[in-house]
Amino acid sequence: MSRLRDLGITIGDMQPGPQNAITDVPGVMVGHTTLIFDEPQVARTGVTMIVPRDGAIWSDHVFAAYHVFNGNGEMTGLPWIDESGMIGAPIGITNTFQVGVVRDAIIRYAMDHGLYESFFLPVVAETYDGHLNDIGAFHVTTEHAIAAIEVACSGPVAEGNVGGGTGMNCHEFKGGIGTASRLAETGSGPFTVGVLVQTNYGLRGDLRVDGVPVGRMIGPELVPTPWPRHESSSSIIVVIATDAPLLPVQCRRLAQRATTGLARVGGYGHNSSGDIFLAFATGNHLPAGPASAYNLRMLPHEQMDPLFHGVAEATEEAILNALCAAETMVGFQGRTSHALPHDLLRAAVGMR
Amino acid sequence: MSRLRDLGITIGDMQPGPQNAITDVPGVMVGHTTLIFDEPQVARTGVTMIVPRDGAIWSDHVFAAYHVFNGNGEMTGLPWIDESGMIGAPIGITNTFQVGVVRDAIIRYAMDHGLYESFFLPVVAETYDGHLNDIGAFHVTTEHAIAAIEVACSGPVAEGNVGGGTGMNCHEFKGGIGTASRLAETGSGPFTVGVLVQTNYGLRGDLRVDGVPVGRMIGPELVPTPWPRHESSSSIIVVIATDAPLLPVQCRRLAQRATTGLARVGGYGHNSSGDIFLAFATGNHLPAGPASAYNLRMLPHEQMDPLFHGVAEATEEAILNALCAAETMVGFQGRTSHALPHDLLRAAVGMR
Amino acid sequence: MSRLRDLGITIGDMQPGPQNAITDVPGVMVGHTTLIFDEPQVARTGVTMIVPRDGAIWSDHVFAAYHVFNGNGEMTGLPWIDESGMIGAPIGITNTFQVGVVRDAIIRYAMDHGLYESFFLPVVAETYDGHLNDIGAFHVTTEHAIAAIEVACSGPVAEGNVGGGTGMNCHEFKGGIGTASRLAETGSGPFTVGVLVQTNYGLRGDLRVDGVPVGRMIGPELVPTPWPRHESSSSIIVVIATDAPLLPVQCRRLAQRATTGLARVGGYGHNSSGDIFLAFATGNHLPAGPASAYNLRMLPHEQMDPLFHGVAEATEEAILNALCAAETMVGFQGRTSHALPHDLLRAAVGMR
Amino acid sequence: MSRLRDLGITIGDMQPGPQNAITDVPGVMVGHTTLIFDEPQVARTGVTMIVPRDGAIWSDHVFAAYHVFNGNGEMTGLPWIDESGMIGAPIGITNTFQVGVVRDAIIRYAMDHGLYESFFLPVVAETYDGHLNDIGAFHVTTEHAIAAIEVACSGPVAEGNVGGGTGMNCHEFKGGIGTASRLAETGSGPFTVGVLVQTNYGLRGDLRVDGVPVGRMIGPELVPTPWPRHESSSSIIVVIATDAPLLPVQCRRLAQRATTGLARVGGYGHNSSGDIFLAFATGNHLPAGPASAYNLRMLPHEQMDPLFHGVAEATEEAILNALCAAETMVGFQGRTSHALPHDLLRAAVGMR
Repeated sequence: MSRLRDLGITIGDMQPGPQNAITDVPGVMVGHTTLIFDEPQVARTGVTMIVPRDGAIWSDHVFAAYHVFNGNGEMTGLPWIDESGMIGAPIGITNTFQVGVVRDAIIRYAMDHGLYESFFLPVVAETYDGHLNDIGAFHVTTEHAIAAIEVACSGPVAEGNVGGGTGMNCHEFKGGIGTASRLAETGSGPFTVGVLVQTNYGLRGDLRVDGVPVGRMIGPELVPTPWPRHESSSSIIVVIATDAPLLPVQCRRLAQRATTGLARVGGYGHNSSGDIFLAFATGNHLPAGPASAYNLRMLPHEQMDPLFHGVAEATEEAILNALCAAETMVGFQGRTSHALPHDLLRAAVGMR
Repeated sequence: MSRLRDLGITIGDMQPGPQNAITDVPGVMVGHTTLIFDEPQVARTGVTMIVPRDGAIWSDHVFAAYHVFNGNGEMTGLPWIDESGMIGAPIGITNTFQVGVVRDAIIRYAMDHGLYESFFLPVVAETYDGHLNDIGAFHVTTEHAIAAIEVACSGPVAEGNVGGGTGMNCHEFKGGIGTASRLAETGSGPFTVGVLVQTNYGLRGDLRVDGVPVGRMIGPELVPTPWPRHESSSSIIVVIATDAPLLPVQCRRLAQRATTGLARVGGYGHNSSGDIFLAFATGNHLPAGPASAYNLRMLPHEQMDPLFHGVAEATEEAILNALCAAETMVGFQGRTSHALPHDLLRAAVGMR
Repeated sequence: MSRLRDLGITIGDMQPGPQNAITDVPGVMVGHTTLIFDEPQVARTGVTMIVPRDGAIWSDHVFAAYHVFNGNGEMTGLPWIDESGMIGAPIGITNTFQVGVVRDAIIRYAMDHGLYESFFLPVVAETYDGHLNDIGAFHVTTEHAIAAIEVACSGPVAEGNVGGGTGMNCHEFKGGIGTASRLAETGSGPFTVGVLVQTNYGLRGDLRVDGVPVGRMIGPELVPTPWPRHESSSSIIVVIATDAPLLPVQCRRLAQRATTGLARVGGYGHNSSGDIFLAFATGNHLPAGPASAYNLRMLPHEQMDPLFHGVAEATEEAILNALCAAETMVGFQGRTSHALPHDLLRAAVGMR
Repeated sequence: MSRLRDLGITIGDMQPGPQNAITDVPGVMVGHTTLIFDEPQVARTGVTMIVPRDGAIWSDHVFAAYHVFNGNGEMTGLPWIDESGMIGAPIGITNTFQVGVVRDAIIRYAMDHGLYESFFLPVVAETYDGHLNDIGAFHVTTEHAIAAIEVACSGPVAEGNVGGGTGMNCHEFKGGIGTASRLAETGSGPFTVGVLVQTNYGLRGDLRVDGVPVGRMIGPELVPTPWPRHESSSSIIVVIATDAPLLPVQCRRLAQRATTGLARVGGYGHNSSGDIFLAFATGNHLPAGPASAYNLRMLPHEQMDPLFHGVAEATEEAILNALCAAETMVGFQGRTSHALPHDLLRAAVGMR
C-alpha cells in the first residue's frame, strides 16, 4: 500500500505529523471492519469508526461542528451537534443503505458497556458503494459496527479498500479511505490537525494533483473509466480532528476549510454528491454531567489561519492518499474499478 | 378516545378540516405500528409513518424544510432537505434508540417495491420512551417499520398511546400522538394546514390550555407526577403538511411557526428536549428525474399569515389532543403515567 | 410612566433583578436619543444604544449569537457574529431607513476615540416607524447615534416613547421600548438575564397578558385601532443580556427562547415582521488581540433551563412594559396611536 | 486595461458569454462611482452597483441566496434574503466604513423615484481599502451611491481600480473589480452564469493561476510586497447572476460554489477575511404585491452541475481579471500597491 509521499509527491508547505494521519492527534483512534466476499452475495463494504480520547469519549465529550458543501448524503446526529457543539460517542462511516444499523449499534455498544450515562446522539455518515457492492444485500450488521469500535487504535491507519471505504471510487479511479495530518504553529503553541476521508466523488477529467491536471492526462484512453459518467459522481465524507482548544464555533470554521482542499483536487460539490465535513477538537475536556462550570481554553480567532492551511493541505493529501492506496477491485456484477496507476501519476506530476 | 373538542374546548379562531387531522391535507396518510406487550421484555413503543401523495411520494416528491427549536434529538435526512428542499419517501417517527432500523427499513421497502429510482434519504425522527418502554430491548424491527407504511391511510388518525407515541409522556401526564388541522383562506384560494405531533416533553407546572395555567391547577397533589422532574422533560416532533403551493423557503417558515403553538401550551425547548419541526407542501408536483424544467406555483409571501396562524393553532390543539387521547399506562419497571383527567381539565378551563 | 408590575400584574414565577431591566446585568448600559418635533418635518423617531461592559466593549468583547424568528427586518453585522461568536461594539436600534447612518456612526465614534484597535463590525437593528414618523425625512444623524452611546448608563431604563422606540406601535396600541429581567439559579451559581425590546408588531386581537386574551376584550370598539390592519403588523427586536458564562452556541440557544415570550403575548412572526433576537453573555472576558489562549468558563448545557425560563418571562414582561409605558402619540399626517388603557388592562386580567 | 484572456491564458473548459462579464446575464447592469483624488484627503475608494432586470428590480424581484465562506465582513439585508429568498433592489459594494451610507442611499433613491411600493431591505457589501484610501475620511456620500445606480448599464464592465474596488488589493498585488461569465448547457436549455468580484484578499505565496503556483514564482524579491503580511489578508465579495430558473434553495447552492473558484486561486478564508458570496437568478419573474400565486419554472437539481462548474470557472477567472486589469496605485500615506506584472504572469504560467 503506497501513499502519495512514497511517490515523491508532497502537498503544501506544512509538516505532517509522525503518522501523517488523523491518529497524530493524541487520543484519536481509528478502526475498520472490512467486508470483502462473494457468497452468498457480493460484499465490498464495511464500517470505519473514529474514536476520540482513547475511547473515553463517552464520558469526556469533544467540541464539534460540521459543514455541508453539498447535502446529497447523510450524517446523523446533526441537531445536537448544532445545539450543543458537542459529540459524545465514536463517529461511524459506512455505506448509504446502512447508516441506520451502524447508528443504532453505537447505542447498543453504550448500553452493553454501561456507557449510556450522559445522553448523546450517534453521528454516522455514508457514501454509496452500490457499484462494487451488492448494497441491497445489507451486509453490515450490528456486530460489524461494534467490531470497528473494538479494534480502533492509534498509530498507522489502513487506507484504500478498507472499512467504510472498501467499495468506494474517486475521480473514476478506485478510492476509499485516506488520511493525512499537519503540524500548525500558533501564538498559543503548536497543534496538530488530522484528516480522514472516505472518498467516493468526482470525475476523471477534474482530478488535479498539486494543481496539475492529472485527470485529463490520464484519460479513459489510458485507464478505462469503468461506468457511465452519471454514476461516478458521488460523495465524500471528511472528518477533521485537532488538539487545539477550539470552541464549537471554531470547529465549524475548520470544517468548512475542507472545501479548500477538496476544490483543489477537483471537487465541485456535484448535485449527486454528499460532501459533508465534520470537525472536532480535543483541546478541552468536557466531562459528562458536571456539577459546575467547565474551565476551558480558547484559541484566539486571530491564531486560526495556520489551522485553516493545515486542514486544506491535509484534506488534499488525504484524498490523494486514498487514491494511491486503493487497489483495483472487481465487484458486484463483475464491475472493475481501476487503481490510479502510480507510474502515470508520477509522470503527470513530473511533467509540470 | 376523546379529543379536546369533545370536552367543549376549542383553540383559536380558525376552522379545522373534516377530520381535524393531518390527513385533511389531500393525499396525506398516517400509519401506526403499536407494540404493547410485557413478555419477554416490556414493550411500550412503536412506529408512526406519514405517507404523502397517497403513497406516490417516491416518484412525486414534495417540497419540505425543517426547524430545530431545541436539538437534543434526531431527525435523519436533514442535509438533503436543506440542499434540495425536497422529501421523497415516507416520514417515520419512533423511539430514540431505533431511528436507525426504521431509517434503513424505508430503504429496504423501496428496494423491495422497485421504488428506488430517484435517490432519496429517509427522514426519521424520535422521542425517548425509556420510562415506560424497556428501550434497551430494541423492540422495533424492519418489519414493524414497513408495516406502518403498509397500513397508512387517510381519514381519522388514531391518537394517544399509538405508533411512535405509544410510550411517551407530555407535561408529566401520559402523552403520545396527536393531530389537528386548520383551513386557511388566502388571496390564492383556500388551503389546509395539518399537524401531527409525537409529544414527550414538558413540566406539569408549565401546561397551559388556551392560556389557562391548567398544569398549576392540576398539580401533583391531584394527580401524582410519576417520576423525578429531570426525567420528564424530553422531546416533541411536529410534522406539518399543507396543500398550499409553497417553496422550500416557505416550508421553513411554516416549520418554525410550530414554536408558537408549542410555546402557548408550555414548551420552553428545555435542554434535554429534541424539539424538531418538519413541514412539507404538496401544492406542487415534483416528478423524479424530469427531462426539463418543472412548472410550479408559489403562494406569495404576503399571503402566508393565515398559514402561520393555522400552524400555531393546529400545533397547540394537536398537543392537547395527544394529552386528551392518551390513557393511563403502566409500563417498564411498573411505572405508571397518568392520563390528564378530563374532568379536572374541563373544570380548570371553565374557571377562567 | 407605568410598568406592568405597577398595575399589579406579574409574569411568571421568577424574581426580577433590582431594576427589572437589562441593566441588571452588570456593566450593561442603555442610552436613548429621542427625536420628537413637528418642524420642518414631523419626527417621531430616535436611536437606542445598548453598551456592554460599562463601555469597555471595544477592547473586551462579548460572546453573542442571534436568532431570526421572521426575517423581514435588518440587523447588520450578522456574518461576523456567526463566524466569531463575538460582538465588539455597542448595539444600536433605530428606524428602518436609517440603520446605515447609525451603523457607520459607530465606526466614526470608534475612530474618534481611538477605539478601532481590533476589527469589529457594528450591529444595528431596526423597526419601521413610518406611521407616526415622517421616515422619508431621514431625521437621524451621525451625531444622534453617537449621543445615544454617550448618554448610555446603568440603572433605570426609560421605556415607551423613547429612543429607537419613539414612534413604534405594538398590537395596534402605542408601543416602543420595554425592558425586564430575571434572576436564574443554576448549579454554577446565580445569574441575571436581562431583556430589552423595541416593539412594533402584532394585531390587537392577538394580544394576551399572562394567557388572558386582553386584545379581544379591548377591541376597536373600546379603543379605536388607528390604521388599516396590514400596516399594523410589523417588527420586534429583542436584545438579551446575561452575566452567565455562556459560549456563542449557548447564546444562540438563549436568543431563540425569546420566541417563547413573544408567542405568549401574541406574536406569530407575521410575514411583514422583522423579529430578530440577539443574545450576548458577559460572563467571559475576551480582550482584543490576545497573545495566547483565552481562559474561559462555560455553564454546562444541563444548567441552562433556568436561563431559558428567564428569557421567556423577561421577554413577555418587557413587551408588556413597553405597552404600559408608552403614551398616546399623535404624529405624521395627524395619525394617532393610542396607549393601552391601564384600567381596561387591569380589568381584563382581573376577569380571568 | 488587460484581461486574463488577452494574455493568452484561459481558465477551464466552458465558453464565456460575449462580454465574459456578469452583464452577459440579460438585464444585469453594472455601475461604478470611482473616487480618486488627493485633496483635502486621499481618496481611493468608490461604489459599485449591480442592477438586475434593466433597473426594474424594484417591482420585479429576483430569487437570491448567499453563502458565507468566512464572515469577517458585512453584507446587509441577510435576514430577508434568508426568509423570502428574494432581493428587490440594486446590490451595492463599497468600503468597510461606508456600508451604511450606501445602504440608506438605496432607500433614498427608491423614495425619490416612487419605487418604494413593496418592502425591501438593501443588500450592501464591503471590503476594506484603508491601506490605499484614507478610509477615516468617509469619502462616499449618498450622491455617490445613487450615481452608481444611475450610470449602471449592460455591455462591457470596467475592471480593476474602479468603483468599490478602487483601493483594493489581491494576493499582495493591486486588485479591485473583476468579472467573467460562462455558458452552461442543461437539459432545460442553455443558461448564462455571470460573476463579479471585489477582491481584497490573499497572500502572495498562495496565488495560483490554473493550478500554477504563480505567487511563489513572483515573490517579493521580484515585485516588492507593499505592506506587512497581516494587513494584506482581507476580503472578497462575489456576486453571481444567472438567467436559469432557480429557486432560492438553488441560488444558495450556486453561491457556495464560488468557494471552489476562490480556493483554486489561493483563498483560504483567512480569519481576517470577509468572504461572502451572493447569487441571484432572473429566470422567474416575481412582480411585487401579486394578487395570486406566481407561476414559476424550476431547473431540476439534477441539471445544476453545469452551473456549478460555470460558477467555479467564472469566479476563478473574475479574480484573475481583477488582478490583470488593476494598475499600480500610490495612495494613502504614500503606500504603493503594485500591479501583477503581465510578463511575469505569462512566463510563470508558460513554465508549467
